[in-house]
Amino acid sequence: MNRGQGIFVTLEGGEGSGKTTVISRLKTYLESRSIPHIITREPGGIEIAEKIREIILNPSHTAMDARTEALLYAASRSQHLAEKVEPALAEGKLVMCDRFVDSSLVYQGYARGIGMEQVWSINQFAIHDRMPQLTFYLDIEPEAGLARIAASREREVNRLDLEELSFHHKVREGYLKLVERFSDRIVVIDASQTLENVERDIIRSLEERILKDF
Amino acid sequence: MNRGQGIFVTLEGGEGSGKTTVISRLKTYLESRSIPHIITREPGGIEIAEKIREIILNPSHTAMDARTEALLYAASRSQHLAEKVEPALAEGKLVMCDRFVDSSLVYQGYARGIGMEQVWSINQFAIHDRMPQLTFYLDIEPEAGLARIAASREREVNRLDLEELSFHHKVREGYLKLVERFSDRIVVIDASQTLENVERDIIRSLEERILKDF
Repeated sequence: MNRGQGIFVTLEGGEGSGKTTVISRLKTYLESRSIPHIITREPGGIEIAEKIREIILNPSHTAMDARTEALLYAASRSQHLAEKVEPALAEGKLVMCDRFVDSSLVYQGYARGIGMEQVWSINQFAIHDRMPQLTFYLDIEPEAGLARIAASREREVNRLDLEELSFHHKVREGYLKLVERFSDRIVVIDASQTLENVERDIIRSLEERILKDF
Repeated sequence: MNRGQGIFVTLEGGEGSGKTTVISRLKTYLESRSIPHIITREPGGIEIAEKIREIILNPSHTAMDARTEALLYAASRSQHLAEKVEPALAEGKLVMCDRFVDSSLVYQGYARGIGMEQVWSINQFAIHDRMPQLTFYLDIEPEAGLARIAASREREVNRLDLEELSFHHKVREGYLKLVERFSDRIVVIDASQTLENVERDIIRSLEERILKDF
């Protein structure tokens, strides 16, 4: 596999952490600094990966086994990596990816209970040693995240949101375990701040840790 | 996962080993002995598994990464196992499956060069410790297997068959490595014999090793 000289950065976070909005702001920043880059997320418009996602998301597939689902996410990741991320890195670009392997470890491995080690083993195969140099984890209390979603949607947090609160807490717990384990790679960003401040913290860290040599 | 009391048997072999014909004869035998059983092969009519296979086999998917493919095979296997094999085993049936995890280890791991250990790691996740109690490996020299195919198709072995001869030799090499490693589980059947004798050898081994307690 081609190991390019680009830089691979991922963003992670739970519901309402502001990840998507922050990424669009970071795009503006990267453009203003004329840094060659792509912003992507799985399946990222890659035909094979999109078709794999269709199988995962098809609501008629109620009999989908949890392991089958985890393998399909890994397959989609592998293809997105091979067709989109690796070529961009080979061209020396900065690749910023909205969610990556940590999301599978946390959501499927930890919160859904398949086991982080097990989900890691299939993802290790899928990513073929391609790990991000830097990951920003946008950390927020689940209650605050859900409140933010509720506010932006101009609706009350509904029964479903509340029922799933324990799930969102497990997600956060899972991320914090990863932060502890991969403290060199994962930078925790306080996502309860304003978006401006979240963006400022990320850019500061990007400049200190990555862009000084770019 | 439900660990049923049935018996799980798999058949493996290269091209022209006579696997498919032998299985239909074994079905007749199991029926004559009134042994509750199913005969299956992946994706085995399981909707999700069939859809995964469609992605693998779609000829327009030329950009399919080898790892993506291996993960998709594992996903299809996981679903076929969960929906078809495990329920039959839970009902106490004998499940006879035409190809299983050994095929992935040999074809993708060994002959295609991804690595047996790596392919094993994702399949271990997919099968969740469900291994066959007994596997018959129908062993035949690739030249003899291809000659058998040529004869049955009433055509000469073509250029493609010949070009791929080294691949078929790698497949056989891979199977023989597995036989060495899992000598308790895998029984080698000399598939250069007549189909009658192949069937006889398999039934003898089935009766000695499995059916005495069934």
